[in-house]
Amino acid sequence: MLSNQLHNGLETAKLLWSRIPNSEDGEVDGGSLLRNSNRNTVESLDYEVIENYAYREEQAQRGKLYVGYYVAVKWFLALLTGIGTGLAAVFINISVENFAGWKFALTFSIIQRSYFAGFVIYVLINLILVFSSVYIVTHFAPAAAGSGIPEIKGYLNGLDIHGILLFRTLIGKIFGSIGSVGGGLALGKEGPLVHTGACIASLLGQGGSSKYHLSLRWLQVFKSDRDRRDLVTCGCAAGVAAAFRAPVGGVLFALEEVTSWWRSQLMWRVFFTSAIVAVVVRTAMGWCKSGKCGHFGSGGFIIWDTSDGQEDYSFEELLPMAVIGVIGGLLGALFNQLTFHITYWRRNYLHKKGNRVKIIEACLISVITSAISFGLPLLRKCNPCPESDHDSGIECPRPPGMYGNYVNFYCGKDKEYNDLATIFFNTQDDAIRNLFSAKTIHEFSAQSLLTFLVMFYTLAVVTFGTAVPAGQFVPGIMIGSTYGRLVGMFVVNFYKKLNVEEGTYALLGAASFLGGSMRMTVSLCVIMVEITNNLKLLPLIMLVLLISKAVGDAFNEGFYEQQARLKGIALLESRPKYQMRNMMAKEACRNQKVVSFPRIVKVADAVSILQSNLHNGFPVIDHVRNGETLVIGLVLRSHLLVLLQSKVDFQHSPLPCDPAGVSKSIRHNFSEFVKPVSSKGISIEDIHLSSDDLEMYIDLAPVLNPSPYVVPEDMSLTKVYNLFRQLGLRHIFVVPRASRVVGMITREDLLIEDSEDSASVELHSTSVRGHRQYSMISRNVDVERPLLNGLLLQDHMLG
Amino acid sequence: MLSNQLHNGLETAKLLWSRIPNSEDGEVDGGSLLRNSNRNTVESLDYEVIENYAYREEQAQRGKLYVGYYVAVKWFLALLTGIGTGLAAVFINISVENFAGWKFALTFSIIQRSYFAGFVIYVLINLILVFSSVYIVTHFAPAAAGSGIPEIKGYLNGLDIHGILLFRTLIGKIFGSIGSVGGGLALGKEGPLVHTGACIASLLGQGGSSKYHLSLRWLQVFKSDRDRRDLVTCGCAAGVAAAFRAPVGGVLFALEEVTSWWRSQLMWRVFFTSAIVAVVVRTAMGWCKSGKCGHFGSGGFIIWDTSDGQEDYSFEELLPMAVIGVIGGLLGALFNQLTFHITYWRRNYLHKKGNRVKIIEACLISVITSAISFGLPLLRKCNPCPESDHDSGIECPRPPGMYGNYVNFYCGKDKEYNDLATIFFNTQDDAIRNLFSAKTIHEFSAQSLLTFLVMFYTLAVVTFGTAVPAGQFVPGIMIGSTYGRLVGMFVVNFYKKLNVEEGTYALLGAASFLGGSMRMTVSLCVIMVEITNNLKLLPLIMLVLLISKAVGDAFNEGFYEQQARLKGIALLESRPKYQMRNMMAKEACRNQKVVSFPRIVKVADAVSILQSNLHNGFPVIDHVRNGETLVIGLVLRSHLLVLLQSKVDFQHSPLPCDPAGVSKSIRHNFSEFVKPVSSKGISIEDIHLSSDDLEMYIDLAPVLNPSPYVVPEDMSLTKVYNLFRQLGLRHIFVVPRASRVVGMITREDLLIEDSEDSASVELHSTSVRGHRQYSMISRNVDVERPLLNGLLLQDHMLG
Repeated sequence: MLSNQLHNGLETAKLLWSRIPNSEDGEVDGGSLLRNSNRNTVESLDYEVIENYAYREEQAQRGKLYVGYYVAVKWFLALLTGIGTGLAAVFINISVENFAGWKFALTFSIIQRSYFAGFVIYVLINLILVFSSVYIVTHFAPAAAGSGIPEIKGYLNGLDIHGILLFRTLIGKIFGSIGSVGGGLALGKEGPLVHTGACIASLLGQGGSSKYHLSLRWLQVFKSDRDRRDLVTCGCAAGVAAAFRAPVGGVLFALEEVTSWWRSQLMWRVFFTSAIVAVVVRTAMGWCKSGKCGHFGSGGFIIWDTSDGQEDYSFEELLPMAVIGVIGGLLGALFNQLTFHITYWRRNYLHKKGNRVKIIEACLISVITSAISFGLPLLRKCNPCPESDHDSGIECPRPPGMYGNYVNFYCGKDKEYNDLATIFFNTQDDAIRNLFSAKTIHEFSAQSLLTFLVMFYTLAVVTFGTAVPAGQFVPGIMIGSTYGRLVGMFVVNFYKKLNVEEGTYALLGAASFLGGSMRMTVSLCVIMVEITNNLKLLPLIMLVLLISKAVGDAFNEGFYEQQARLKGIALLESRPKYQMRNMMAKEACRNQKVVSFPRIVKVADAVSILQSNLHNGFPVIDHVRNGETLVIGLVLRSHLLVLLQSKVDFQHSPLPCDPAGVSKSIRHNFSEFVKPVSSKGISIEDIHLSSDDLEMYIDLAPVLNPSPYVVPEDMSLTKVYNLFRQLGLRHIFVVPRASRVVGMITREDLLIEDSEDSASVELHSTSVRGHRQYSMISRNVDVERPLLNGLLLQDHMLG
Repeated sequence: MLSNQLHNGLETAKLLWSRIPNSEDGEVDGGSLLRNSNRNTVESLDYEVIENYAYREEQAQRGKLYVGYYVAVKWFLALLTGIGTGLAAVFINISVENFAGWKFALTFSIIQRSYFAGFVIYVLINLILVFSSVYIVTHFAPAAAGSGIPEIKGYLNGLDIHGILLFRTLIGKIFGSIGSVGGGLALGKEGPLVHTGACIASLLGQGGSSKYHLSLRWLQVFKSDRDRRDLVTCGCAAGVAAAFRAPVGGVLFALEEVTSWWRSQLMWRVFFTSAIVAVVVRTAMGWCKSGKCGHFGSGGFIIWDTSDGQEDYSFEELLPMAVIGVIGGLLGALFNQLTFHITYWRRNYLHKKGNRVKIIEACLISVITSAISFGLPLLRKCNPCPESDHDSGIECPRPPGMYGNYVNFYCGKDKEYNDLATIFFNTQDDAIRNLFSAKTIHEFSAQSLLTFLVMFYTLAVVTFGTAVPAGQFVPGIMIGSTYGRLVGMFVVNFYKKLNVEEGTYALLGAASFLGGSMRMTVSLCVIMVEITNNLKLLPLIMLVLLISKAVGDAFNEGFYEQQARLKGIALLESRPKYQMRNMMAKEACRNQKVVSFPRIVKVADAVSILQSNLHNGFPVIDHVRNGETLVIGLVLRSHLLVLLQSKVDFQHSPLPCDPAGVSKSIRHNFSEFVKPVSSKGISIEDIHLSSDDLEMYIDLAPVLNPSPYVVPEDMSLTKVYNLFRQLGLRHIFVVPRASRVVGMITREDLLIEDSEDSASVELHSTSVRGHRQYSMISRNVDVERPLLNGLLLQDHMLG
């Protein structure tokens, strides 16, 4: 009798585990339906005894309805993420364009009278913008510094990094990047936009920010870690889609670069989010066309349309293109190495000295950047405008207050332009547009391009790592397109063909530098094609990327991986290390003392175990007949802490809770078990227990995960790694070899047909086994043998 | 002493297992380096005793060199696959275009005199082409029928399907699709091209076809299943890239639709293959431009350039576009359902009657298709040409013998055209080009489009499933663009705006039908953009695809999934079934009797076990002290068969082979264990053993996989499914719960730094554990406890 009750208790444990939303396996297993339908029970708050078949059936019925609702909410949140990210991108772009446009217009109007006054104004405006950015970041949102992509990668790889997805980080990121990009620093707004999208998604996923009283109850549906991470993946894609107006590129970026696992269902929702962003951004652009957005609209989002560029390429051009790839790989790897060392130095020395140093540093860099971008073009002699070609629609010099090529800056005559000012004394978007532009052969001199390359490369290296939001895409494109254009000039001079465009080489150079630095492949390729609106160059971009990535990989890791490593974000790479082939599972955890819990644990013991180590998961081991033990599951530190804090599950007896206690053992609101994404959660030090409490017991059965993944102790670590990585696990038990095989599961066993009657399941089977019927009823009859052995023993002992 | 020897024996087993190339886990684990470097040992054929550390080190050194060679070969084969597929695509296209061009030119020249004679000639040419195709397929390469994509999907999902990757299938596919597409049937050459690419890759991967004496020894490097499957994935991508000139689309198609698992390293090589294809195809196109390829070049590869089409869209247009999505979903789902039923009927009734019936069927359909495509336009009244707009460059009627809009067919006057003939009496590529064309508003009447839609839809449904190579992309685009253009006509009339192009709607219709039928997402989107060379419509294509896929999913499965199910190809979907949440691992293998082997098995017993069932994998269980047992690994039927066939491993004693026997036990050339991809392998019936042989014993230790994946018996089947699917397994052992936990592996344990000294491995660790050093030497000291127990016992018993 009691045995049956005990068995029921463990059965309930299994049911409950699947209900506890933060269940770690649930994070990445495909069983969302499982969790979703059980959420129903959680939400309805009627934790009655689940003991008969009819009741379960009813649950299942209601569960299916709930699944529909849940799926609808998921899509709705994806929609909101898309709209939110799109609007944030539009806001950032309008602000940046207006600040920058106003700054350049003012400076140009002043330098008509005095270059010195213009210089002072220019430096001051930049300084104010950068100061506002660095002040916001240092005093309000420290997590908003940098690009945020390594952190998001870490989060989606399964790590919890404090502070990166807070509401204040979102605000800091948006306003910080307006300041830093508007202030003319050598950085971009695209990386921060990815982080912005992720923040928006995360906040939506947890139903707003409770700290700022912005939380919405009806949105708090997502209790599981996995659903939140999925939504954050959507947010990343939305960020890229909004930053580059590249919806497909966004999807691929999220899947190639950011997430750690790939599921077709997720891809579908990511795709939807990106499409929404594209529509939102397009609508905003259409609305701004009529001039309602100030300076925004003429420059606008970064689409560097090169579709009117080079139509075709000849075979001889493949060689200089390969050269571009090699240069990109070399300069990209060098960039990674330099930023790595400088960031290391910053983190360990400079930035330890406090916020004031960070602010001074950023302001200093701003002044230097302003001085260089204003001063260097002054030293440059102006060139006469080329003979005007009215068909191309390019004016020289460009009309004042407009964007375009051929900037007249410090020139003696009206019909002259300053080629260095055209790229340096300009917003980065416009500079890139000028570098990519077709039909402007011989616009730039090699000397100007080289000067710009060296100066901008140095500035980009130095600027990255300051305490402002900073993306690396646009600086990378700047650097790459500069040397690309240099190679292009050489090709034009050497091959003497008319249909070669320097702009094409600039584009390939940009791709090569990004490939050499970030080491992305398909997503970068698609992004480059989408931002230049030119599909004809696709094979060339692919080849250049192949070369530059291969060259870069010969030297070091990708940019984001290096930065993640610096920040202590332990990313699990997709490929196991070479050394693992010589190691066994056991060796990976050799000196580790396994700290385990018994099923019924005294509160005092639990507290002391939790205080004595920092492990996050513990095996639960039950004692059975003749002194043998049995691993009955995994319990998480966070769940134990919730149990200890609430105290409602404490019991006086060291016996398992009785069957009526099934209801007792689930007195918790299971949403309590969900760790808030944006806080550190409770710690053992926060929990204060009276001496009476310490003498009581807890039955862990209801909160444990009854079947964590296990590996035999002598399995190759390579295999363990793949298991861990592919399933996105956090804990694996290393156990001794099994003594017998209960059964074997093959492909045929897993082919279950959908059937009308959800209770009976028909299995495809090999000819040996024939068809079988399963019913849910039979589960209660068929209890697992060894587990029951243990329970029977206790029954026996206690009876 | 002996215990040590025994232990060495099992150690060797582990080493050897990792050398056996067809190791099933190896298929998808990331440990390619592991296998590769061990291949070195396999290839060098010196199976010496591997017993000391120094020797192992030497192996590791040589292994690294070999890894470099192996990686180079992989890339070289990917290059060859790209070139081969590109050339095959060019060959097919040139042939089809020339046959079709010649056919239409001849027919047009004859109908100047007699429409009846023209009709007869037209029907006859089509009939001859289709007959040649169906004859090749039925008599020479039966596996070449259909599109081949479901079979390739199955192969990459982990199934071995006989015949699909043979050399004769390749030949049949190439020549068969020239006949069937050139013969004007309602099917495309794109699906077959994917199959062609896969065949080329597979043949390269196994070093040619030995049957036709085309095998190259130096290419026979790939002995592992996984490397072959990877190369086949490259081949699929190459096929799509070549078929649509869509390199990125090819990569995404391979990864979204075809493969079952996703690895970034593979993506990189797939990407390379696609780029190569793009270059090869472009080169060939450039070469053909000068008219060297006959009719090919004017029509050429299917790029339906719509980049000069609609620039922008207004919000009101989103409604009709959504309508297109819904229609696409409905018609696509209906298409899937109809083809499913017809194919079912064909497979089970019609095609069982033999090849003659198949040939008659295909010829009949050819005659009907010809009659309809010739006859229906005759019934249609001609329209006068629109006022000529010389800027658009579209002539009306088109000059004879050329491709283009406005076909003059059975018209009374010169300045007239037959709109039905423009789409019906034309190659499909040209028909689609006409449907997509911009600046041709009011070219088609609604009546013609409706007629064409109904007739072509019916033809496409009926034609699919005949014994000819048949793709569904182009027919799908035809159908979709027809109703898309219909909706477009309505929009033009209703909204009365000038900037609406019917061609845009045709394009969206094509996307919607493919989305509704094939249910692809990102890859289809990218393919559509690449073939139309128009990025501006990307967000619209995304939205239309979202709607049509959602609508289609409400009714049935995707086209390829349905066809795969019909063909008995058991694909494991990415998502576990709903019912699995209520099942335990044990239940999936309930009535299955576990057939296991002892470590040392008598040959007679092994034969009778293999004869008594059809299982492909068996647990190996060793008996240890006090009657307890221990699962020591998994042995595959195919490996057992190799052992039984070769007989070299037979031994007289029922004892484990002695340590000197380490060399004895690996007398095999391990490439013997690789199952040839294109044959069924050996069967137990093929093996003939003398009665002496039957009395001997085999030690299975050297050939077993010592650590197959295991799951506890009460694990949720959802979790088991994910494990199975994510790691691409074939067998999982279901074992009882463990009695203790040896250790726990967490994220920190798996972060191993690369170090110079490959022997010593430094582990990142949590603060609790500190840094540790591992060396390979320590492995020999540290032997696994329970395994040794068993061996010690035997030692004791025998000593």
